[in-house]
Amino acid sequence: MSERRASTGITVACAQMDPELGDIEGNIDRTERGIREAAARGAELVVLPECASGGWAFADRGESERAAQPLVGGPTITAWQKLSAELGIWVCGGFGESTADGALYNSSVLIAPDGVKSLYRKVHLWNTENLAFDPGDLGYPVVETPFGRVGMLICYDAWIPESFRSLAVRGADLALAPSDWVPNPHQPADMPPLAHIMVTAGAHSNQMYVAASSRFGVERGQEFIGRSAIADHTGWLLATAGDAEEVITASIDPVGSREQRRNDPFNRPLGDRRISQYALGEVETGLA
Amino acid sequence: MSERRASTGITVACAQMDPELGDIEGNIDRTERGIREAAARGAELVVLPECASGGWAFADRGESERAAQPLVGGPTITAWQKLSAELGIWVCGGFGESTADGALYNSSVLIAPDGVKSLYRKVHLWNTENLAFDPGDLGYPVVETPFGRVGMLICYDAWIPESFRSLAVRGADLALAPSDWVPNPHQPADMPPLAHIMVTAGAHSNQMYVAASSRFGVERGQEFIGRSAIADHTGWLLATAGDAEEVITASIDPVGSREQRRNDPFNRPLGDRRISQYALGEVETGLA
Repeated sequence: MSERRASTGITVACAQMDPELGDIEGNIDRTERGIREAAARGAELVVLPECASGGWAFADRGESERAAQPLVGGPTITAWQKLSAELGIWVCGGFGESTADGALYNSSVLIAPDGVKSLYRKVHLWNTENLAFDPGDLGYPVVETPFGRVGMLICYDAWIPESFRSLAVRGADLALAPSDWVPNPHQPADMPPLAHIMVTAGAHSNQMYVAASSRFGVERGQEFIGRSAIADHTGWLLATAGDAEEVITASIDPVGSREQRRNDPFNRPLGDRRISQYALGEVETGLA
Repeated sequence: MSERRASTGITVACAQMDPELGDIEGNIDRTERGIREAAARGAELVVLPECASGGWAFADRGESERAAQPLVGGPTITAWQKLSAELGIWVCGGFGESTADGALYNSSVLIAPDGVKSLYRKVHLWNTENLAFDPGDLGYPVVETPFGRVGMLICYDAWIPESFRSLAVRGADLALAPSDWVPNPHQPADMPPLAHIMVTAGAHSNQMYVAASSRFGVERGQEFIGRSAIADHTGWLLATAGDAEEVITASIDPVGSREQRRNDPFNRPLGDRRISQYALGEVETGLA
């Protein structure tokens, strides 16, 4: 058992940074700094924030288009791929994606040293993102890796419990969440940030690890809180960041803990579902 | 607008107590104390804990059966109905339910001064409850009341996000959650109890109010934490209890806030769902 854990466990890192709107080259440098620090600290996987390639607060679709790039051959993905191969570290990061048919997505990519392994397109656009991006159309892909089955979600997706749940249903052990977390207007001072509550609830209810890398700083008046967080499968946080540039790390073992998670004698909120009893379609009356 | 709020808003109360295993008459007295205090403090609706009629820690099905009662004509429901009519207060509480065909449910009831309005049977049994009860078979009913559309869930149901979601899909403005919250074995001292995290996440992601009444005390070695909580539709807690006998109250307006909740410019996690992108069936591989 301990041998198995030793062979499957990894160090995961979240590199928190402050990307600059439209500055593709400068942001490549910023992400490189985080990726190199994560690798130097022994991480096998590093998560970067949402829209780490070109910033977030686009005024319109023209602006987001100028900062976007294709998955294959784009400058940021190319740079991350090169660093991944050089350092032997997996890289997950958010980027503005343009496609050949003119679509624009708030996307994230999972890159292994030998190539791109997964692409996710943000399903739930938040606020003014609707002016800059098309809603994601790939659902919630999950891929096998040496450190477990991995899926992605982006920022506000974590507010909608179907995001974590869809990953869990598809077998994910670990959710990676590039994020640009903003302050909650009603946040009480004596409670954790709402983002941490969503991460803890999502990790616990789905018995999966979560690594969420957020940004800090201000863009066009929109403040970001940082506070990147890594949760284990109980939901509680193994590591958290402050509100400045920082790389946080945690030791996790998504593969080695599968048996324990499956047979948890205390709580089994994923296995205890009773699908026949639910109403999960369109809202039948009222609010939405 | 203020007139509308004044006409639809209510004071909701949670009466936290320590029921005794198998002591039906004593527990009627305990709940009466909480109901009367809630009414005296101006509450139009009071929520009692899970299994407030006969306790929780049943060793086997024989024991839970001896403490159970039918919905119609059972001593506890009869007593609550009488108090509801006398005091003009709605009562929601948990009770062990027996049926004519020999089923046993961990149930909750919503009683108006003029009669029973809704019955819920706990969908997700936790731990040893599986020895004492049958799993609920009514899904998540929602009923119209003068203070909004109301549904119920019980304790561990809140750990499974489909519970809150099913209520929201059926149009609920307010979820009532009779609970017997237990300590989380991994609870960090510097974080809110996991139960509060689940209530906050459920209320926020579904833009609904939640009133959760928990018990305290120890039954057959099982500790309960109390910490009853009332959340508004942002998820943040309006009132919380400690770990002793206590009635907490909060002013809420589920009907008057519908427009505001529907058009929240900041977050609309219920309205922003994209059902076509989800995987919500049986787990496809792995954990469960």
